[in-house]
Amino acid sequence: MSKIKDVIVEYYRIPLPELVSDAKHGVHTHFEVPIVRVLTDDGREGVGYTYTGGFGGRSISKLIQVELRNVLLGKDPSCVEDLWEQMQTGIHYVGHGGLASFAISAVDIALWDLRAKKAQEPLWKLLGGHNKEVKAYGGAIDLAFPLEKLLKHHQNYLDMGLTAIKIKLGQPKLSEDIKRVKALREMIGPDVEFMVDANMGWTIEQSVRAARELLKYNIIFLEEPIDPNNYEGHKIIAERSGMAIAAGENLRTPKEFFQMMTQGKIDFPQPDASNIGGITGFMKVAHVAQMLDLKVSTHGMQELHVSLLAALPNAGYLEVHSFPIDQYTKRPLVINKETHRAVAPDTIGTGVEFDFAKLAPYKTDF
Amino acid sequence: MSKIKDVIVEYYRIPLPELVSDAKHGVHTHFEVPIVRVLTDDGREGVGYTYTGGFGGRSISKLIQVELRNVLLGKDPSCVEDLWEQMQTGIHYVGHGGLASFAISAVDIALWDLRAKKAQEPLWKLLGGHNKEVKAYGGAIDLAFPLEKLLKHHQNYLDMGLTAIKIKLGQPKLSEDIKRVKALREMIGPDVEFMVDANMGWTIEQSVRAARELLKYNIIFLEEPIDPNNYEGHKIIAERSGMAIAAGENLRTPKEFFQMMTQGKIDFPQPDASNIGGITGFMKVAHVAQMLDLKVSTHGMQELHVSLLAALPNAGYLEVHSFPIDQYTKRPLVINKETHRAVAPDTIGTGVEFDFAKLAPYKTDF
Ligand SMILES: [Mg+2]
Ligand SMILES: [Mg+2]
Repeated sequence: MSKIKDVIVEYYRIPLPELVSDAKHGVHTHFEVPIVRVLTDDGREGVGYTYTGGFGGRSISKLIQVELRNVLLGKDPSCVEDLWEQMQTGIHYVGHGGLASFAISAVDIALWDLRAKKAQEPLWKLLGGHNKEVKAYGGAIDLAFPLEKLLKHHQNYLDMGLTAIKIKLGQPKLSEDIKRVKALREMIGPDVEFMVDANMGWTIEQSVRAARELLKYNIIFLEEPIDPNNYEGHKIIAERSGMAIAAGENLRTPKEFFQMMTQGKIDFPQPDASNIGGITGFMKVAHVAQMLDLKVSTHGMQELHVSLLAALPNAGYLEVHSFPIDQYTKRPLVINKETHRAVAPDTIGTGVEFDFAKLAPYKTDF
Repeated sequence: MSKIKDVIVEYYRIPLPELVSDAKHGVHTHFEVPIVRVLTDDGREGVGYTYTGGFGGRSISKLIQVELRNVLLGKDPSCVEDLWEQMQTGIHYVGHGGLASFAISAVDIALWDLRAKKAQEPLWKLLGGHNKEVKAYGGAIDLAFPLEKLLKHHQNYLDMGLTAIKIKLGQPKLSEDIKRVKALREMIGPDVEFMVDANMGWTIEQSVRAARELLKYNIIFLEEPIDPNNYEGHKIIAERSGMAIAAGENLRTPKEFFQMMTQGKIDFPQPDASNIGGITGFMKVAHVAQMLDLKVSTHGMQELHVSLLAALPNAGYLEVHSFPIDQYTKRPLVINKETHRAVAPDTIGTGVEFDFAKLAPYKTDF
């Protein structure tokens, strides 16, 4: 039996190419990437990570370095599900959900990297191996972009080979949001898939009113119209407007997803392996979704999620997020220009290998 | 207008007088107390704090020192509700609920200390001033105590002047739990109020079976039979057994309480100001409870909660918890031996003034 010898954390704080904003989280200037190495006594190494919108990364790193490391040292790294449970229990009182889920996620991804390397499999096969190519859309944090820039930004996604895009809503007036949606729909034509994201900026009543307008522009889904913990609120919005609802990036436990999916009847669950408890947490959500005949979409970290969706028979949409973590890896996201789909890597392990030389300038104490 | 000039965090890690354990969290060796000072530019100081069962305190301290301090600097400390909202929003993506609630709680309590000092009022009056004396019970972490020690420990509570006690359940066999309950009921007689706490150790089915047995011993409430986020589970247990259910120490947002109270129909909500968003979060829970004609009880930090319950017309039970934070303050909890109630302090401010000389040996880097 091999044992965990050490757990090492590095914290990277990376400036965004430009300042971006949404309806809830204000202006983003940086993203943070805590990276974890799990080392075994037989000389193996698994690498995992999480990310944030610029806040809390030091506290996450501290939690891994002190508390999770204590839970893991000396344990058999093969028993991933049990270690997940031990991490959850070990810091349960302060730790169920919330910020701790980011810390557990980073470690869990490292454990899956070890597991996949030991099995000599790429992650997408190890987890299921359904279809190496997945549907993807460009998700912009573009609430503050003037119209011309908005159009240009989304043309870029089409030029990359994508045939689906998503914009932010939440302008001071609904009519301004609708004007932007209309201009974009005219630019992309009727066949490109079009999603919108309100980042919890609305009440139920505002959401219903907006959704009714949005239906005219053939919108695939309305994301996070309200606080996603208001589970039943989603159902009210969908039933009154007829609009499909997406949510999940702000839920932090599989149980919260279960409640949202069963009570809220949402159409597009969007777990994020960086904050839902890693790959272990993500797969639990995916399996519950399957019971409800729902497809699973994703939020953020496209470089990893492409392999998770590729594994699943109920794969939904991969979000190509505006935090360019993949630009700091050896294989930035690959789009097949013929199929317009994202392609999972065949690299052994998670397929996310960081370019530490490129990351080096952003390493920060925590 | 006065402004927040600095936010200073100290982290104390204090050994428990003896090792104690419960059905979920295993053995406790220490408790942690991050203490926050909010300083204003006109020379005032508010002191707040939170606590944990030994894990996560460094990460909480880091979150206050980096992220919450950034949110607060330069702001008007009088606008407590708005600052609470700003803290919640400022770290929302990593921060709603979970570990961040401990950090926000500590700061919020410091802001209330400033507010009460400015108003020259003791907290129990400032928040409502209903009844300075509140019902209290001794809550032991005694799952591992042999029977003789168990009885002696609870006799101590009666000697302190308390007329209500609570023990831990979760022995390997239900019959062993019941044997302990029976022995204790015989010792305390029929009039002492008796509560039990299973610390999430059971399934719904086990809880129903246990509750039916427990009813024979006139138990006031069964606390945390299951994961408190399984809201409807509480209702099933209560309906099938007839037992009153208490829960709340493991919920981290007022919205989680709302869901548990409305879906779970629990009888004894038990918020803890150290982890539910401070006094601001606690009062939101108390107000929702009032709408449902429920009394509010507490978990932990008796030295502060006595003032919160004393403020409220719907005060339930104060837990006198086994983490002796009050022993490190200038006024350890006071019990009126005639009324058998705990007495709120008339000190201006929160009434919790730390004995920093006594704390000094436990100050730890984070
Ligand atoms: Mg979104
Ligand atoms: Mg308890």
